[in-house]
Amino acid sequence: MSSNRITRRSLAKRLLMTSAAASTPGVLFAQEKEQSSRQAADWTEVRPGVWRARIGTPESYTPVSGRLVDPQINGFDRLPHVAESPLPSISGTISIRGTVVQLPLRPNELVFGLGLQLLSFDQRGKKKTIRVNADPRFDSGDSHAPVPFYVTTKGVGILVDTTRYATFFVGNARPKPEEPATNVSNVNPDPNYTHNIETDDQGQVTVEIPNAAGVDVYLFAGPSMLDAVRRYNVFSGGGFVPPEWGLGFWYRADSRATSQRVVSLMKEFRDRKIPCDVFGLEPGWQSHSYSCTFAWEGQRFPEPTAFLSEMKALNCRVNLWEHAFVHPASPMFPAMRSLSGDYGVWGGLTPDFADPAARRVFGEYHGKTFVDAGVSGFKLDECDNSDYTGGWSFPELSRFPSGLDGEQMHSVFGLRYQFTIWDEYRKRNLKTYGLVRSSGALAAPYPFVLYSDLYNHRDFIRGLANSGFSGLLWCPEVRDAASEEDLLRRLQSVVFSPLALVNGWYIKSPPWRQLNRKLNNAGQDMANWEATESRCREIIGWRMSLIPYLKSAFHRYAADGTPPFRALVMDWPTDARLTKVDDQYMIGDRMMVAPLFAGEAKREVVFPGGSDWHDLWTGELIKGGTTITVDRTAEKIPVYVKAGSIVPWADVGAHTAAPESRRLSARVYGNGSLSFKFEGDAGAEMRWSGGKGAVAGETDYRIHHWQHLG
Amino acid sequence: MSSNRITRRSLAKRLLMTSAAASTPGVLFAQEKEQSSRQAADWTEVRPGVWRARIGTPESYTPVSGRLVDPQINGFDRLPHVAESPLPSISGTISIRGTVVQLPLRPNELVFGLGLQLLSFDQRGKKKTIRVNADPRFDSGDSHAPVPFYVTTKGVGILVDTTRYATFFVGNARPKPEEPATNVSNVNPDPNYTHNIETDDQGQVTVEIPNAAGVDVYLFAGPSMLDAVRRYNVFSGGGFVPPEWGLGFWYRADSRATSQRVVSLMKEFRDRKIPCDVFGLEPGWQSHSYSCTFAWEGQRFPEPTAFLSEMKALNCRVNLWEHAFVHPASPMFPAMRSLSGDYGVWGGLTPDFADPAARRVFGEYHGKTFVDAGVSGFKLDECDNSDYTGGWSFPELSRFPSGLDGEQMHSVFGLRYQFTIWDEYRKRNLKTYGLVRSSGALAAPYPFVLYSDLYNHRDFIRGLANSGFSGLLWCPEVRDAASEEDLLRRLQSVVFSPLALVNGWYIKSPPWRQLNRKLNNAGQDMANWEATESRCREIIGWRMSLIPYLKSAFHRYAADGTPPFRALVMDWPTDARLTKVDDQYMIGDRMMVAPLFAGEAKREVVFPGGSDWHDLWTGELIKGGTTITVDRTAEKIPVYVKAGSIVPWADVGAHTAAPESRRLSARVYGNGSLSFKFEGDAGAEMRWSGGKGAVAGETDYRIHHWQHLG
Repeated sequence: MSSNRITRRSLAKRLLMTSAAASTPGVLFAQEKEQSSRQAADWTEVRPGVWRARIGTPESYTPVSGRLVDPQINGFDRLPHVAESPLPSISGTISIRGTVVQLPLRPNELVFGLGLQLLSFDQRGKKKTIRVNADPRFDSGDSHAPVPFYVTTKGVGILVDTTRYATFFVGNARPKPEEPATNVSNVNPDPNYTHNIETDDQGQVTVEIPNAAGVDVYLFAGPSMLDAVRRYNVFSGGGFVPPEWGLGFWYRADSRATSQRVVSLMKEFRDRKIPCDVFGLEPGWQSHSYSCTFAWEGQRFPEPTAFLSEMKALNCRVNLWEHAFVHPASPMFPAMRSLSGDYGVWGGLTPDFADPAARRVFGEYHGKTFVDAGVSGFKLDECDNSDYTGGWSFPELSRFPSGLDGEQMHSVFGLRYQFTIWDEYRKRNLKTYGLVRSSGALAAPYPFVLYSDLYNHRDFIRGLANSGFSGLLWCPEVRDAASEEDLLRRLQSVVFSPLALVNGWYIKSPPWRQLNRKLNNAGQDMANWEATESRCREIIGWRMSLIPYLKSAFHRYAADGTPPFRALVMDWPTDARLTKVDDQYMIGDRMMVAPLFAGEAKREVVFPGGSDWHDLWTGELIKGGTTITVDRTAEKIPVYVKAGSIVPWADVGAHTAAPESRRLSARVYGNGSLSFKFEGDAGAEMRWSGGKGAVAGETDYRIHHWQHLG
Repeated sequence: MSSNRITRRSLAKRLLMTSAAASTPGVLFAQEKEQSSRQAADWTEVRPGVWRARIGTPESYTPVSGRLVDPQINGFDRLPHVAESPLPSISGTISIRGTVVQLPLRPNELVFGLGLQLLSFDQRGKKKTIRVNADPRFDSGDSHAPVPFYVTTKGVGILVDTTRYATFFVGNARPKPEEPATNVSNVNPDPNYTHNIETDDQGQVTVEIPNAAGVDVYLFAGPSMLDAVRRYNVFSGGGFVPPEWGLGFWYRADSRATSQRVVSLMKEFRDRKIPCDVFGLEPGWQSHSYSCTFAWEGQRFPEPTAFLSEMKALNCRVNLWEHAFVHPASPMFPAMRSLSGDYGVWGGLTPDFADPAARRVFGEYHGKTFVDAGVSGFKLDECDNSDYTGGWSFPELSRFPSGLDGEQMHSVFGLRYQFTIWDEYRKRNLKTYGLVRSSGALAAPYPFVLYSDLYNHRDFIRGLANSGFSGLLWCPEVRDAASEEDLLRRLQSVVFSPLALVNGWYIKSPPWRQLNRKLNNAGQDMANWEATESRCREIIGWRMSLIPYLKSAFHRYAADGTPPFRALVMDWPTDARLTKVDDQYMIGDRMMVAPLFAGEAKREVVFPGGSDWHDLWTGELIKGGTTITVDRTAEKIPVYVKAGSIVPWADVGAHTAAPESRRLSARVYGNGSLSFKFEGDAGAEMRWSGGKGAVAGETDYRIHHWQHLG
């Protein structure tokens, strides 16, 4: 510890020494050149298979020091024992810019993660600044949910414990050459702007943390890539199991809808046999939005209690849109005034969510006003720094009473906001499941799913693949569609995601009645709308059928941190074909999804080796280790299961509490050797043997059919 | 001065004090909250109409302290005298993050500049980080040529003298509200994600400069907006006049072309009567590129001296592509090794251009090898930090022997690189004119024009409009075309720009023979190519005709800093219609260009008031203060001149040294009251009086025709 103190002190001293000289601009001073100190740090084991190395004096507020959820101690017991740190000691440099840390990278060791990266997958060779920003249009690292955590194909996870917008040079920052080249040909065979980034040699990940005079680095051992991620999730506090209704189908109603309209729309869903568990309300439910009053709008929602009761009677939960910026007319304003940052957003206060007092004001108000009234959860919008849009968030130079500046606050704003809301449900022994626009490090325990305004379908699927590397969940919500094909393909993806949502915030009727916004709002249905609705109904039905399988995957997430949704490379890190596959993903331990994209004639589906696979729908057998082509004429989304899988497939009811949700068929693929457990280790188990299926243990599911496929 | 020292000292002291406490993470310390100091600074006049305010202790290396060109002292004499600083004293805050400065913004005072912003125009309400980055895909401030200078419609220019990636919050960072709202309606009439940024109230520009413990701010008085920009340019060292050949037509040949092919292509231009003054060579001329050897390729260019002579005999200059990163096989490598940064780029060295010794090695090599051999100039590529591409530049955390870090170096790399090359020509009493991918503060004297790989025609025209706010020149080069219409429209714009270039680096024949890349390289001309060529020949001819007028605009640039190319708002800052007009621009004092864009059915052209206008081509009169619509069927690019203008229009020769370039017609619009001066105040003057034209003074131009229009 003493050496750290000395470093910070000597940096300060140097600052002091150069101050007189530096006051005459125009001259370079030798002192400035030496204002940095290099030091090494050893790994110290802090949790089973988790090591920490400290460079300099870390900032007092970091993801780990500021955490509000403890590690899930018993989760570590379910992971392999690793005796020694898989990496040698590391080194770092502290200067007036901040801290630089260097971590080794071995030949062909590929790097994934850094949070919700929508625009790239394999990070080796790239530079990424993990800045919180909602509008990444190029692959700079900007993200709703940047996370200073990465995992490598050699089974090493690294968390750089900072709330700063750190820059990761992933094997692409290379020392200058030292030796002149001799015997170089004077013939230039390929002069057309080409140059490769090599990944097959020794390299390093160089991380610069601005403003900090030191940093802690945490290392999560595997031995496998998946184990390293599991260990990070367990360290984060473990995964969670959403409430069953949260896994049903969600719809967000027109922002201008009244309570009457919402109820009648819900009834229409029931009449038209569209399953639905949650209705979301958009800004129009509030008396002022941008910034928020967090109070019901008087004309659209004159009797909120009656409205919530009516929705409850229809077995439909209500989820409320909001953002965190407190309008001067909000009941929270007087108490929050002194608990907020020095800059306002849309004329409202920015709560200091790093301060327990601010969380208490915000949380208790929500608890008493909404949770007690039966609101099931929230959609936490605009916490992701759309700041380049112009005033859409607080500046990084803001100051908060807790001592954080705006940059640090952006990195935890979404996280602490999630905690504040979640805590109100926990206190009441209730579950919630919600949406959020920003998240960050150590997020696994939070019952929220990320979403975004960016809307490229491929990027959305890449988001699903990437989310699993960093303890995040991602919803590729359906919000708009260029064509019926686009609507169907997007809907097919979203029902195979953590949260099955259609967001109709800008249209009066569901999109399957009318895709065109203007015509939809004019009440003009498409000519063929009932056929479109029928196809959508079928797809939403798949979601209802999938829930028992999904729940099991989430139980695993809660038990040992296994991401329920993840990229293929995480399970097969040595298969070089899979290091670029960012448009397929695993759900649970046996299901692989390969969505189709509207307008594309066909797609390739890559199958990992080690086992054969079956088409989920037809049972058709596909050899492991192969690649097949699926045509756009495919009616269903391509989904595959490992040979031997047993998959539960529920009947379709109107909502998750309907009796149909407890009745299911068991789909058995191949020899049925992969038995299925409903609720983790302790739950009932579906087994197949000698051509017959049976359930061991107690369950409230009733299996009415064993269907053998493939 | 003593107060600055104290501030830096007390910051250092605070760092020292908190080091012990901060070594225990997880707790927030009161000390951290107070690690900032606020101070005010008065304006001190440093040049006529230029004031400086100092906050804290500025860094030793800044655009002003590191400048290599002195202010153009006699230029100040040509600007209005301003007795007092137009702004009151300012304030700033220094903390461990860096320095924050706040500058007042008055109601309806709009802000322009911040360098080559391709994606936006009026900056009020926006946040911009002036990071050097070649790939701005969203409007974050990233730019090839970010400049910490802005100018307002109220005639104030502000230079924040830093090489840091400063963030400008232009009126959009607002203090938090203090008073709760009472009597607020509970009716929300417009809940759909709408919220305005007001510009009609008092505000401020808040600038955060990372890593710096202080900063100098320079204020440039008008009184007019154009005067403030002139003063900034004069302070920068003044504008320049390009060599006449630089204003001719440029073509860049296929990167794989041999010297024989380049010569035969040049001859083809002469045969086909396509005017041309400069041929550019792309990477293939070098024995290794990416990184560069700066040595001729042995197979393509076996006899460079003979090749250069042959081109000279054809009256065609040669311009060489390069970037600055020195390959180990380069003759410069041994000398540059110790004069370069600690990180390499493409396996080459990064010269420390802030160090005179590195500039000397780089410059002298270029001087002896290329300038002496007759090379007319260079295209300086890849100096603009395409770093998110992955290893395409040096990291910001680099260290250079001069004491600069990588962030500082990026802000001056393009500038110092330009100086190094330019200086070799200056020393030989030669003129050069070249292309560069990056520039920055105080760039007006450098004889280089910016270009980019981004390729949206509208963004390119916005670049032309924006370039004039910050002492930059911009070339909307023609490099690709989606259609013949696109080719013609882009060519029409580029001939009305600072540098008229078609870049055929990837095609064997000029694009007018074949637009399709594959077919072009396969030697297949388009069926109608001669018609297309003929239209291109005519457009390139306009360029040749325009040169006398252009030269005069550049003479004005050199005399008093008036940007030869600039946005309309700069001349008419009180006309609210013009504050959004980013697709029209002025050339010189009397000509306005409003390009047409392929695929768009029509465009509006806004005419400033104060005088009437004439169509350049037809003489048709257009009322000042009006807006007209131009249809896409217009054959010519819409160009207008002020009523009364006299415009010289040269005959079209094969190149600028051809006798035709000295013969011209005088176009007289309306009453001819705006006489035309050829070379600034001292030059000959074309006058019109009583229906007759005459030239006063000596000139080598011969006017063979006075043409009265309108």
